[in-house]
Amino acid sequence: MARQKFLDAAIRLFARHSVAGTSLQMIGDELGVTKAAVHHHFRSREDLLAAVVEPVRVGLRETVLAAEALRGRHARAERALTGFVAVVLGNRELLPVLTGDPGAAELLGSHPDLGDLTRRLTNLLAEVDPDPGPGGHIRADVVLSGIACAAGPRSHGADPAILRGHLLDTGRRALGLRTRKGS
Amino acid sequence: MARQKFLDAAIRLFARHSVAGTSLQMIGDELGVTKAAVHHHFRSREDLLAAVVEPVRVGLRETVLAAEALRGRHARAERALTGFVAVVLGNRELLPVLTGDPGAAELLGSHPDLGDLTRRLTNLLAEVDPDPGPGGHIRADVVLSGIACAAGPRSHGADPAILRGHLLDTGRRALGLRTRKGS
Repeated sequence: MARQKFLDAAIRLFARHSVAGTSLQMIGDELGVTKAAVHHHFRSREDLLAAVVEPVRVGLRETVLAAEALRGRHARAERALTGFVAVVLGNRELLPVLTGDPGAAELLGSHPDLGDLTRRLTNLLAEVDPDPGPGGHIRADVVLSGIACAAGPRSHGADPAILRGHLLDTGRRALGLRTRKGS
Repeated sequence: MARQKFLDAAIRLFARHSVAGTSLQMIGDELGVTKAAVHHHFRSREDLLAAVVEPVRVGLRETVLAAEALRGRHARAERALTGFVAVVLGNRELLPVLTGDPGAAELLGSHPDLGDLTRRLTNLLAEVDPDPGPGGHIRADVVLSGIACAAGPRSHGADPAILRGHLLDTGRRALGLRTRKGS
């Protein structure tokens, strides 16, 4: 069985039972295979979780590196926001499920890269304000988690291009970035 | 054992194992009592969940009714936003845990009042825009879920009054409400 089938089944189960409530056994049951068959692809639960979040890690890393390479606080925050919205919309089945899931927060915090990337992304948005302080970080946190949640199941009827435009517009307003027509 | 002890234990377990991953048996184990002792206070899991969210239901209901009674789109949205931030900060152990928890979303949606109150709250914020359309609802969704998440564990070091000010300020900016000094 293809590795991707296991990852898709894991994401479906996370949405139903949360990360903490999903075992390798349940993933096997979902696909009608033995736990040993799951183990053939993933040594451990951690191994599987890392594989599930890999596209998010890659997308966030690209976004953070591209934004950090720019000059100017506004340009950096704009690049970070646009990249984050793209990562969220590219991982709509996964990211809204992870945001707010306590088991996932623990996983992301202990992941060697994801914790660091999330902190750098938050800083890029907070630093729109030259002296961000706690306010800049709270604002960045509202924007990042709000966008991730709002792209979840409740919005699944919305046209992706329209959703993208409104998520960006809301993020820019909240952060005090210039809003642009037609982007 | 006092009823409140069971509710506090349930909230602690939700944060660790999510709503779907928490059973009456686990709540009994957490408090060192039998499942029968839990059943003495709560007939079912649903009964316990309804008791846990009761303070949130009461706070949201008060907020929605007060806001709907006002004239003027901006005044209504301002009242809804201020009330929501107060409900979130009054239920900081619970609301950030519920936001994004798939089991909780199901629970809240099927709760006789909470689903309706959440929809009315979203409409009050969306209708800052005289013709809100999908954009108004997406914006409201980003603000509500972002505020609930940002008041969670990561912000637990922040002074509540400062946190309140920044959450309100971010919400007002995102929604296009006038921002006020010192509120």
